[in-house]
Amino acid sequence: METRINLPQSEIPSAWYNALPDLPTPLAPPLDPQTQQVLTPDKLSPIFADALIEQEMSPERFIAIPDEVRDIYALFRPTPLVRAKRLEEAIGSKCRIYYKNESVSPSGSHKTNTSVPQVFYNKKQGVKRLSTETGAGQWGTALSFACSMFGMKCTVYMVKVSFEQKPYRKILINSYGGEIFASPSTQTAAGRAMLEKDPDCRGSLGLAISEAVEDAATHDDTRYTLGSVLNHVLLHQTVVGLETEKQLKLIGEKPDYLVGCVGGGSNFGGLVLPFLPRKLNGENITFVAAEPRACPSLTRGSYRYDYGDMARLTPLMKMHTLGHGFMPAPIHAGGLRYHGDAPIVCNLMAEGLIDARAYYQRDCFDAAMLFLRTEGFLPAPETSHAIKCAIEVAKQAKPGSCVVFLYSGHGMLDLASYDAYMRGELTNYELPQDQIDQALMLCPDIKG
Amino acid sequence: METRINLPQSEIPSAWYNALPDLPTPLAPPLDPQTQQVLTPDKLSPIFADALIEQEMSPERFIAIPDEVRDIYALFRPTPLVRAKRLEEAIGSKCRIYYKNESVSPSGSHKTNTSVPQVFYNKKQGVKRLSTETGAGQWGTALSFACSMFGMKCTVYMVKVSFEQKPYRKILINSYGGEIFASPSTQTAAGRAMLEKDPDCRGSLGLAISEAVEDAATHDDTRYTLGSVLNHVLLHQTVVGLETEKQLKLIGEKPDYLVGCVGGGSNFGGLVLPFLPRKLNGENITFVAAEPRACPSLTRGSYRYDYGDMARLTPLMKMHTLGHGFMPAPIHAGGLRYHGDAPIVCNLMAEGLIDARAYYQRDCFDAAMLFLRTEGFLPAPETSHAIKCAIEVAKQAKPGSCVVFLYSGHGMLDLASYDAYMRGELTNYELPQDQIDQALMLCPDIKG
Repeated sequence: METRINLPQSEIPSAWYNALPDLPTPLAPPLDPQTQQVLTPDKLSPIFADALIEQEMSPERFIAIPDEVRDIYALFRPTPLVRAKRLEEAIGSKCRIYYKNESVSPSGSHKTNTSVPQVFYNKKQGVKRLSTETGAGQWGTALSFACSMFGMKCTVYMVKVSFEQKPYRKILINSYGGEIFASPSTQTAAGRAMLEKDPDCRGSLGLAISEAVEDAATHDDTRYTLGSVLNHVLLHQTVVGLETEKQLKLIGEKPDYLVGCVGGGSNFGGLVLPFLPRKLNGENITFVAAEPRACPSLTRGSYRYDYGDMARLTPLMKMHTLGHGFMPAPIHAGGLRYHGDAPIVCNLMAEGLIDARAYYQRDCFDAAMLFLRTEGFLPAPETSHAIKCAIEVAKQAKPGSCVVFLYSGHGMLDLASYDAYMRGELTNYELPQDQIDQALMLCPDIKG
Repeated sequence: METRINLPQSEIPSAWYNALPDLPTPLAPPLDPQTQQVLTPDKLSPIFADALIEQEMSPERFIAIPDEVRDIYALFRPTPLVRAKRLEEAIGSKCRIYYKNESVSPSGSHKTNTSVPQVFYNKKQGVKRLSTETGAGQWGTALSFACSMFGMKCTVYMVKVSFEQKPYRKILINSYGGEIFASPSTQTAAGRAMLEKDPDCRGSLGLAISEAVEDAATHDDTRYTLGSVLNHVLLHQTVVGLETEKQLKLIGEKPDYLVGCVGGGSNFGGLVLPFLPRKLNGENITFVAAEPRACPSLTRGSYRYDYGDMARLTPLMKMHTLGHGFMPAPIHAGGLRYHGDAPIVCNLMAEGLIDARAYYQRDCFDAAMLFLRTEGFLPAPETSHAIKCAIEVAKQAKPGSCVVFLYSGHGMLDLASYDAYMRGELTNYELPQDQIDQALMLCPDIKG
């Protein structure tokens, strides 16, 4: 029995799986942030590449992956599915635990699965430069990697507090040829306005989005890209679940539990969506989403229309939200500090097809340390939530169950977080209900 | 045609290849540093585990790899052999370039191949704690990883200047449960003596070795471990070459050139030694060693007996040396800053069986950047020397040649070096001959 299940390159999926036509209830449409009317595709074209807008609303069950994208995927895909035997032994598990290892990508996380096609389609359309925002830096790194593969320019706005805390991210993005600005920056009107108001502003994801969107909207040769939440992002991430399905079949396994962490929901969606048809067909597969107790959108958020960003620039989306003005506590899993979730994931959550659980960050780091000292590899703080959850699931599940979790990224550039953990400096944030209630009061009152 | 050639776990070698019986001339024996007489094994037993001393001098061509070691190897081995197609295209190569990717190990480098068996044999002998020194940190990380796998204590003395420059290394070693001291430390008499003489001393590898050896020699339950140079270290690294041989055979390739960087010589030896019998049998395979021009032991050193460390504590070994008192310029490839080389590598070099080349560090970083922007992965500064050399070889070789280089480690914890490179702050050190001559004057005058 192999520890790592590898697939030949020919098994890189030839098409992404689009869950939209299979959702038990249709997805609530995105709304124009100004008029609150259903958004038309032409409104998005100054911001996004046409092919991506088309994918965002496609009724097709499978969408072919272009050869140029599969060629770049082949630098790191198919990724291994790994039996975590030593972890199983350490927790005395009677279940089999596997992890799908997306940390082997050049940028170190699953984000590369969508940055590559996003850059490809923009390049094909004649776009010269891409702009984006990044929080902890995983997405900015993945986009700059993909831009270097296709010879495109890349501009990243990184939340200033993270920019200063994680200097290696900046260097890595620069090494790929990307330019990076601490947000608020003097590059955009939004950034300059904020700096005028507060020269010491440390930035926020909401503001960084505003800067990146403005950069794209004000430059003809530039488009904006997003690393999670949107339908086309989850679509691209389905390579993860499609490969996992083949790997499990190869070793005669049927998954009982599929576990992933949820920030915007793209890695989780990428793992579970390809198994949706089987689940809807009556197979007993449990989808488990792991989120931080400091930002519990799925477990404690309200399912309603809300803005994707603090500045109310993005379309309104129906999702589980803590309110677009919600400012999560400064947990180290920066990639999970998002007030909402992908509409597709929320749709399934509302249908009762997803089991969501929330965890304290110290418990997640405990789990990450156990993983490190048994399996040997250092997980990203975001990934530690999936590990914590998988361990819990394996302990509670019927003996003999098969638990698969998504190992979304490595923690080599997050070592400062481990230092804080070992020094005992991590806080287990508890979120008071009145703070959620207050943030939700600012959500628009839209039926649907 | 696959981009990455994977082997099943069953193809992890079941035995290491020991080159000692196949060397065309017998290896000059190590000498006692005090008496300059041939060293007897009993002299080493307070320092090294008995099984490792036995391997150091073994006449057996193959030495079985214990199951417990293969189990840990299985967390990351067999490692992939990768066709660097995009790099080939970028340089207009008419050769096929492959790299054996050892960066996929938990600690991020080939060092894990020897840390795992070294810890295993010490554990088996009842040793409770291992001490070592580390320069850039790759070896200290690999040893602490292996100790965490076998539940052993680990103490690392890290050269103070590196300790301060690379804070992530300390955190990673701590995360694996290892303790780490900046050397000179107050833990040892050698460290305290140095601190008394010079409280601001930034340390050296020679001093760190003294501290780690003293720690082992003065504690009954502790042994010392070394990450390169010695015969048993090269022995363990032969898993690299043995797998490479199988992978090339699988795709019908015969290697024309095998390229690796040389610091102490263990990754290079691990790649090329398994091909030595074929080379001695008349096959046309060129072994190319890449070293820094700032520390050109193979290309400009003297082949003679010298000490392994500055403090003259280690046995005398016959090797290409720049003198044990030689202090290399502060190049970023810290792992290549060693005055000597593995005696086995030097033996082959003296026989004319190795082609050695030396490179400036800026040229190596140029090559690393090209690799990053074509193949996507960030190389360690040490590895950049192998990349530079492989590119040069591929450009000069007969069209259609097969060039294989060893990708010894990733650069995720070396990003500060890339920052210095992009800022134009890297120096191309040229080493004046009189500096070598002066350092060699301190070598002992021993015939043999």
